Amino acid sequence: MFITFEGIDGAGKSTQVKKLQKHLAERGLEVLVLREPGGTPVSEQIRELLLQGKEDITPVGELLLFAASRAELVQKVIVPALDEEKAVILDRFYDSTTAYQGYGRGLDLSMLGEINRIASCGRKPDLTFYLDLSPEDAMIRKFSEKSIPLAFEEEELDRMERSGLEFYTNVRRGYLQIALEEENRFVTLDATVSPQDIHDEILRALVGRFPGLGY
Amino acid sequence: MFITFEGIDGAGKSTQVKKLQKHLAERGLEVLVLREPGGTPVSEQIRELLLQGKEDITPVGELLLFAASRAELVQKVIVPALDEEKAVILDRFYDSTTAYQGYGRGLDLSMLGEINRIASCGRKPDLTFYLDLSPEDAMIRKFSEKSIPLAFEEEELDRMERSGLEFYTNVRRGYLQIALEEENRFVTLDATVSPQDIHDEILRALVGRFPGLGY
Ligand SMILES: Nc1ncnc2c1ncn2[C@@H]1O[C@H](COP(=O)(O)OP(=O)(O)O)[C@@H](O)[C@H]1O
Ligand SMILES: Nc1ncnc2c1ncn2[C@@H]1O[C@H](COP(=O)(O)OP(=O)(O)O)[C@@H](O)[C@H]1O
Ligand SMILES: [Mg+2]
Ligand SMILES: [Mg+2]
Repeated sequence: MFITFEGIDGAGKSTQVKKLQKHLAERGLEVLVLREPGGTPVSEQIRELLLQGKEDITPVGELLLFAASRAELVQKVIVPALDEEKAVILDRFYDSTTAYQGYGRGLDLSMLGEINRIASCGRKPDLTFYLDLSPEDAMIRKFSEKSIPLAFEEEELDRMERSGLEFYTNVRRGYLQIALEEENRFVTLDATVSPQDIHDEILRALVGRFPGLGY
Repeated sequence: MFITFEGIDGAGKSTQVKKLQKHLAERGLEVLVLREPGGTPVSEQIRELLLQGKEDITPVGELLLFAASRAELVQKVIVPALDEEKAVILDRFYDSTTAYQGYGRGLDLSMLGEINRIASCGRKPDLTFYLDLSPEDAMIRKFSEKSIPLAFEEEELDRMERSGLEFYTNVRRGYLQIALEEENRFVTLDATVSPQDIHDEILRALVGRFPGLGY
């Protein structure tokens, strides 16, 4: 069982990942939770470079760094875990690349498809939960989380957050487009309802798809 | 004028790059010398990760890290320098990827072609000097350079050097194959003759190709 969560920052991915992890563990599954970019020593160093670096990175450079981090994670962690029949829950996967680097930064979508295929070694999630939220709502959540007044200081934001609302609007448009194209894999969820309601929705989507779970 | 040097470690690239740089500068050209991977702050951090890292990196991860470093260098440094009519001399470029990751590590060559195209933003060198040397001769040079007896300690070698002679034999085979396929761009040089003889050979290859130099 290979499940990914997608959505812009603040959409509630981490919240839902934790709830699903707890639920699956209670049903007796061995569950492995991972985040992108990261999850191996090399990938964590790449994460550092991407998110905390003071240097400007070109869109293609960014793309290839994300891809390198992903290739490490897939080969060293995800494939071995799936081979051992573990459930793998991933906080972001290649759909983030398509949405962020493609729809967000305007890179060629067919080139991204190629890179995604290479980086994921051909592995596809069984199911992807997309938490749909407007960038405005997401910003409000993030600031209240950090206890920062909305008239914020630029320095409080990491490189990704500084890209601004227009960027995230394009990213959201990208996710909604992927959801149309990958309708068998994508489950789009309204991220404005309560965490428990979203979790219930997620469990409903699991019913039937994984008979082994005993629902 | 965009010139690259290729060959296994110890073949004499740095030696020839310096000689050519001096020669072109004496003829009044502005010359920019760069090395791969590296040349921008982000690329240097990636270089660190690749060459000095204690962690094992998968072949695909390695490929994508080299590509990320290259994309940064091409877009931020090489293209602007060429636009300003500077001569750019590069110590390794994408042929290293084909030779090392393709012929050396066995990655799919058409995938590498795709990645090379993306990372170099479609830029091709005008001329590539390939210094051909056997891995055995190269090892002997490297060890005498470091004043290490040939019965060396593993710790003295960086990650690339530890890959061993078989790997470098495949890399050399790769370079020779590329030389066949790219015969208009590649100039294969016997790296066992003296540095001055190689330099003279290089200048002969430049004659006619760059009339602006006034040979
Ligand atoms: N359904 C929800 N409704 C309201 N707030 C939520 C909801 N889900 C998460 N949050 C809050 O929004 C913020 C971001 O949630 P998080 O799960 O960290 O999102 P992400 O991992 O997608 O960035 C947190 O403060 C979290 O408590
Ligand atoms: N033509 C040559 N003949 C003999 N030794 C050489 C020659 N060119 C370079 N060397 C020596 O071989 C070693 C490696 O040369 P270098 O230019 O650093 O190679 P590379 O940059 O390809 O690794 C150095 O000690 C250098 O002085
Ligand atoms: Mg999160
Ligand atoms: Mg050198």
